Amino acid sequence: MAVGLEPLPALKPIAGVRIAVVEAGVRYKNRRDLVLFELAASSVTAAVFTQNAFCAAPVHVARHHLDVAAPRYLLINTGNANAGTGQEGLVHCRHTCNALAKLAGEPEWTVLPFSTGVIGETLPAQRIVDALPQALQGLKDTAWNEAAIGIMTTDTLPKGGSRQFEVAGQMYTLTGIAKGAGMIRPNMATMLSFLATDMAVDKSLLQSILSQATQSSFNRITIDGDTSTNDACVLVATGAIHATPITDASSEEAQALSVQVQSLMLELAQMIVRDGEGATKFITVHVLGGGNTEECCDVAYAVAHSPLVKTAFFASDPNWGRILAAIGRAGVPALDVNKVQVWLNDLRICWLGAADPEYREALGAEVMKASEITVRIDLGRGAFEDRVYTCDFSYDYVKINADYRS
Amino acid sequence: MAVGLEPLPALKPIAGVRIAVVEAGVRYKNRRDLVLFELAASSVTAAVFTQNAFCAAPVHVARHHLDVAAPRYLLINTGNANAGTGQEGLVHCRHTCNALAKLAGEPEWTVLPFSTGVIGETLPAQRIVDALPQALQGLKDTAWNEAAIGIMTTDTLPKGGSRQFEVAGQMYTLTGIAKGAGMIRPNMATMLSFLATDMAVDKSLLQSILSQATQSSFNRITIDGDTSTNDACVLVATGAIHATPITDASSEEAQALSVQVQSLMLELAQMIVRDGEGATKFITVHVLGGGNTEECCDVAYAVAHSPLVKTAFFASDPNWGRILAAIGRAGVPALDVNKVQVWLNDLRICWLGAADPEYREALGAEVMKASEITVRIDLGRGAFEDRVYTCDFSYDYVKINADYRS
Repeated sequence: MAVGLEPLPALKPIAGVRIAVVEAGVRYKNRRDLVLFELAASSVTAAVFTQNAFCAAPVHVARHHLDVAAPRYLLINTGNANAGTGQEGLVHCRHTCNALAKLAGEPEWTVLPFSTGVIGETLPAQRIVDALPQALQGLKDTAWNEAAIGIMTTDTLPKGGSRQFEVAGQMYTLTGIAKGAGMIRPNMATMLSFLATDMAVDKSLLQSILSQATQSSFNRITIDGDTSTNDACVLVATGAIHATPITDASSEEAQALSVQVQSLMLELAQMIVRDGEGATKFITVHVLGGGNTEECCDVAYAVAHSPLVKTAFFASDPNWGRILAAIGRAGVPALDVNKVQVWLNDLRICWLGAADPEYREALGAEVMKASEITVRIDLGRGAFEDRVYTCDFSYDYVKINADYRS
Repeated sequence: MAVGLEPLPALKPIAGVRIAVVEAGVRYKNRRDLVLFELAASSVTAAVFTQNAFCAAPVHVARHHLDVAAPRYLLINTGNANAGTGQEGLVHCRHTCNALAKLAGEPEWTVLPFSTGVIGETLPAQRIVDALPQALQGLKDTAWNEAAIGIMTTDTLPKGGSRQFEVAGQMYTLTGIAKGAGMIRPNMATMLSFLATDMAVDKSLLQSILSQATQSSFNRITIDGDTSTNDACVLVATGAIHATPITDASSEEAQALSVQVQSLMLELAQMIVRDGEGATKFITVHVLGGGNTEECCDVAYAVAHSPLVKTAFFASDPNWGRILAAIGRAGVPALDVNKVQVWLNDLRICWLGAADPEYREALGAEVMKASEITVRIDLGRGAFEDRVYTCDFSYDYVKINADYRS
């Protein structure tokens, strides 16, 4: 059950990107489980990957290839994460990259591989290889919507969006898709997201725009605190509109792109939370008045990760004691609890370290009925603020995660 | 449903400790909700308290009183935690201490207050005060079992134990009781534990024995990662056996007491986990081969806190991918995943960063059927090890925490 997730809009094509979505039979038959992106030769690609030490084989290979050459192909399979597969997993991953590179007449390093699905099972690499000719023949400009569906595993809805924006009389387009967050779908794991624009951008500037946007989007969502082995987010600038790449971060083009990338990635990240396992509520934890960003995030995550807070939201119970207890254990040095205030939407529930004298349980219960709620926490010690997005913790979360492999 | 929790044994009295358990009607009628400990004048008391910044009024008052004078009374109520109650909470707490001190003819600082129960409601201090004369009249040597029941809130079984040990021909006794762990019972919150011995021990040595034992017991258990506002553990040495306090940490008496306190506190801590909300399995996460204690604990807590690992245990699913992913996100610097090995009891499931080649799912499923399981993780990078104790994550956890206040 997704919270406030709209049907996928018609995604705008990006000049310089062609896409094919085909059946490889990785895990299931009659399922289009292989997505191929072809990028124009002028393309520049930036990427961020999971920080998990047990990262999957394709993450190792993609990181290495990205260091060596400019990518021309993104090869994405569902049904198998090729994670926890050791040295053998690397061999299988390289086999698919090699096969594609040979067919395309390009070096192996121009292929970036991505896998999502079951952890710890051998990747049926040959099935992927066998499907590559059909994929190469099927490349077309208009397959973003198909790709958004093609990268899904147990997401209940496809996730994507487009932006058009004008700079100095020139119109640019940005389109992106994403699938399941973090370890939100444990074995069918992994958040993947792919974005492309037709602007021409220098590689280090593009990487910096992506990294910055990741901080305020995919790095600010949590379902259950677990980080997956396969997370990756890729941003491509095809350079289809103009040949000379933008290098100046303060230029109007760079600023406009940065704003649009942040906006689209935040929307995609929130879509992932809205489609969280068993989610019935979409919760924004907004911490302000912090002494620095780190302590704002520590408090926001302590609240967003607390199973007690999350089950209270599921029960629509304005249980502010659990929120205070989570704030109190977040490790903020020398926190003066008498300066802490907490609101549910616009209703102040805590003041001077205790219940607001005007607060009545009935008022809190009324706010908690909504499917989208902001917990606002003022630490009263500085000018920093930050936001983390999460969902509630329901019977269905346990059901989905306990039943998943049975 | 408690996992492997035995009925409370007959707890041995401690010379120098008298106990009364009476009805004060704090929250419910016909419930013995007030426990009073009287300590002999020769007693020395050590204590550890919650690190939560939003700690309850009685924690503030008890910390202060302990700094000023040697305690003669421990006053414990259930039904109300007097937490999140601001300045008013302090006034109510002091009122109960004052009243007891007057009746007993002792200074206010000799009373240590403890509260457990609903957060954020006004403590009905007068009801406690009204019950004090009856409590003082009812003090007796043999009420430890009644006290173990008296401090319960939503624990399903009382928790306690006794040890007798001989040093240099002298027999000593140690008895302790405990109730619900951390935020395990969110609103009826708080772990409380009270231990006493008839040995005479210097205060700073006693505090050091308690602090050390806390590290390997109450600080190594987790139900849901939430820390309560009222946690406290008290260790009393009444000095009933001999007058001269032991001051030398390397003495035979101090060593013997330290071993016994650690053993009893670990047993009490494990009892709390066994009685965890909705628990169907008792899980030991044993991390060895670490470079230091901190990284062993980081890995053990990452595994023990992971909702995905905990739901897999509930489902008896040997889902080793979730364990690897939790290890990988624990933040161990430069972890070489190829050296990591993981066992379920004696069954090795992971080796060289992937599934053990000899591992078969059916073997894992067999181990997972047991109600007590040890996850053993060898990081392969040093000689340090540590253990954390936890339980699984069931439908009942969500049910208990979502339904609790409705």
